[in-house]
Amino acid sequence: MSATVLRKRRSTCPLNVALEVFGDRWSLLIVRDLLFKRRHTYRDFAGAEERIATNVLADRLARLEAEGILFKKHDPADARRVLYRLTPKGRDLAPVLVEMILWSARYERTAATPAQIREMTEHKARFIAAAKASS
Amino acid sequence: MSATVLRKRRSTCPLNVALEVFGDRWSLLIVRDLLFKRRHTYRDFAGAEERIATNVLADRLARLEAEGILFKKHDPADARRVLYRLTPKGRDLAPVLVEMILWSARYERTAATPAQIREMTEHKARFIAAAKASS
Repeated sequence: MSATVLRKRRSTCPLNVALEVFGDRWSLLIVRDLLFKRRHTYRDFAGAEERIATNVLADRLARLEAEGILFKKHDPADARRVLYRLTPKGRDLAPVLVEMILWSARYERTAATPAQIREMTEHKARFIAAAKASS
Repeated sequence: MSATVLRKRRSTCPLNVALEVFGDRWSLLIVRDLLFKRRHTYRDFAGAEERIATNVLADRLARLEAEGILFKKHDPADARRVLYRLTPKGRDLAPVLVEMILWSARYERTAATPAQIREMTEHKARFIAAAKASS
């Protein structure tokens, strides 16, 4: 995907643009894995509890890389192993994910614990900074 | 869709649950229309700049209603006209949308103006409260 192709959006509404860039649930689950779950390899993502199909995973990794949200690097400890890392642009999705988690924990049945939600609510900036720093 | 069907999620991770509930770009564009653009009818949504296909629109409206994010009511001024309104659960998606808009305005070319972004950044809580109150 070239930059030119990427810019042909259906509209320039900022929300629409955001949704065209990452607005697919599989894309955001990959960002979640990188940001909160210390998962960094293709195998890690494929093994996540939602069981993403491997063709979808490969497609979404390529799109996220083309959109500048993640990049690949070789594991310094094992050059055959490819690690995926978030760019600063990718890490800056943390506030979007946190608001989704808070909404979901409020209105749906989820595995989030009251302690986790309290931490995210009362110390939101600190929680986001910690996730970005560790990803 | 029954409540039972809705609860069969791929995982109970709160982010995954959120994405299963509204994680489709068309769904969030409908929420945007209701929250920020004073669009309330099928015709309004169909006329939005992204040109949603009518079969997709009908499907997403039914899903959002089943998920308790919006409801239908008859226009008091014209009983044949159906209006869509956000529930409190739907209005509480405002912080998610605002974070997406801020991210997009920061990293992508969009139609958002610097004044809009400043207002959303510096007075985020006020901006969200105003959007919720007017929707």
